[in-house]
Amino acid sequence: MQIRQLAIFGVGLIGGSLALALRRAGAVHRIVGVGRSAAGLARAVELGVIDAAAASVADAVRDADMVLLAAPVAHTPVLLEAIAPHLRAGTIVTDAGSTKADAVAAAYAALGERVGQFVPGHPIAGGERSGVDAAQTQLYDGKRVVLCPLPENTVADIERVHAMWQAAGARVFRMTPAQHDAVFASVSHLPHVLSFALVAQILDGADAPLKLDYAGAGFRDFTRIAASNPEMWRDICIANRDALLHELDSYLATLSTVRNYLDASDGAALEQLFAHASQARHGWGQKEKK
Amino acid sequence: MQIRQLAIFGVGLIGGSLALALRRAGAVHRIVGVGRSAAGLARAVELGVIDAAAASVADAVRDADMVLLAAPVAHTPVLLEAIAPHLRAGTIVTDAGSTKADAVAAAYAALGERVGQFVPGHPIAGGERSGVDAAQTQLYDGKRVVLCPLPENTVADIERVHAMWQAAGARVFRMTPAQHDAVFASVSHLPHVLSFALVAQILDGADAPLKLDYAGAGFRDFTRIAASNPEMWRDICIANRDALLHELDSYLATLSTVRNYLDASDGAALEQLFAHASQARHGWGQKEKK
Repeated sequence: MQIRQLAIFGVGLIGGSLALALRRAGAVHRIVGVGRSAAGLARAVELGVIDAAAASVADAVRDADMVLLAAPVAHTPVLLEAIAPHLRAGTIVTDAGSTKADAVAAAYAALGERVGQFVPGHPIAGGERSGVDAAQTQLYDGKRVVLCPLPENTVADIERVHAMWQAAGARVFRMTPAQHDAVFASVSHLPHVLSFALVAQILDGADAPLKLDYAGAGFRDFTRIAASNPEMWRDICIANRDALLHELDSYLATLSTVRNYLDASDGAALEQLFAHASQARHGWGQKEKK
Repeated sequence: MQIRQLAIFGVGLIGGSLALALRRAGAVHRIVGVGRSAAGLARAVELGVIDAAAASVADAVRDADMVLLAAPVAHTPVLLEAIAPHLRAGTIVTDAGSTKADAVAAAYAALGERVGQFVPGHPIAGGERSGVDAAQTQLYDGKRVVLCPLPENTVADIERVHAMWQAAGARVFRMTPAQHDAVFASVSHLPHVLSFALVAQILDGADAPLKLDYAGAGFRDFTRIAASNPEMWRDICIANRDALLHELDSYLATLSTVRNYLDASDGAALEQLFAHASQARHGWGQKEKK
């Protein structure tokens, strides 16, 4: 696979690491960056992540055969609108956002009948650090990338995005946008919301300092993700609102069931639910270690 | 402080470690054990944890000046009833259960006007392993023990239990039984229930294998406590039912508020709640490291 010009919108950890990995594979001729910060783009050039900062969105997109959106998900609609007037036939646009239904909706709105040029994607990789200085050639090695193709995509375009991520070292999988959003709402976004909510509930209740003083290892693990970035998680929750609401309502139903077992002092029902969960979590832990 | 005869009901990690720590301190003359398994008691004698298995509850209690209940919390009522007929004036009964209102209620029921002889306690220590083979002399060194004295207790008896745990290396604190149960319902029991419920909700919903396949580090931390022992957590939940219901209802209210913010796409309100929690969790993590 060979990309003539890759235009990256948002040259940070995610976009920068893809650039470095594609260079390692010899899979890209030229990389241009677009971003809100001139200093950030200059730094990306200095680090050899991109060849140049594009003079304008028009410049970046007109000569690109592949466009990657790697800015925060809340920016996707605006970026797609800015790109649309300059998008040539044959150029592929893909993204790296952690929610997909919202990106697809934005693509339909901005690209209209050219929506087939947008191939939605989500690399499952990241790290504590962000920004182009955190970018690393090996970030995607062995990691998973989920593509969520649209009915309007051509097989050739999907294959091209697939090949790009493979060239960067990743393993590529496919889901529908709805499946994707349900999966991540369930195992990532919902746990974050539940963890934030527990800390908030403790803070708002009686004896908060005393409670936090006696919190131990269980609390530490359960609430580790409650120390996450509030703006980022606000954006993810809003972007994945529908799927997250669905999972949250389902969780509230399960929790109400547990509440009723407890209210009725139904030890057998509690034990059965706990045992079911405990067994599954043990099995998951065993698989994860492999 | 000097104990003439300590009778331990349930010679496992908790009771066995106290025995070893009191021997180290030279604070006890003789220790007898009572338990359901003759083999377990023989092993405790072999390990030097106890001097002898008591021939009967009567024998254990009649000659004891200190009685420790260290069996699972569900057994507390039955043990107190068994002890009551043989309890002499001046003998102190204390316990090591992780819930207190239930132990206090059991003590009122079993001991009646002699309830002042029962000084409720809870050592905040434990470990992955259980049973007398896991007992260790250092288990309580620097750990916290919460005493929840009753209005009927004498100052002298409270001081004696306090001194016993200090001799074992622990730092001793005091709360009311209600405060104690609210604190542990909030920072320990509720997180366990929420974590069990998340895994159960995923298992009962669509695409469970796909979801678990994509679960990552956030899920791993959040659900680590969902691998806990189901019988033990059933007993703790039932024993601390009232306080846990109170905390669970308060959590359900907070979670419904978050749901409404999300439903209304109210990013500002979500961010404020997340930021409040994130900041507090950061602060807690910093304190914990010290």
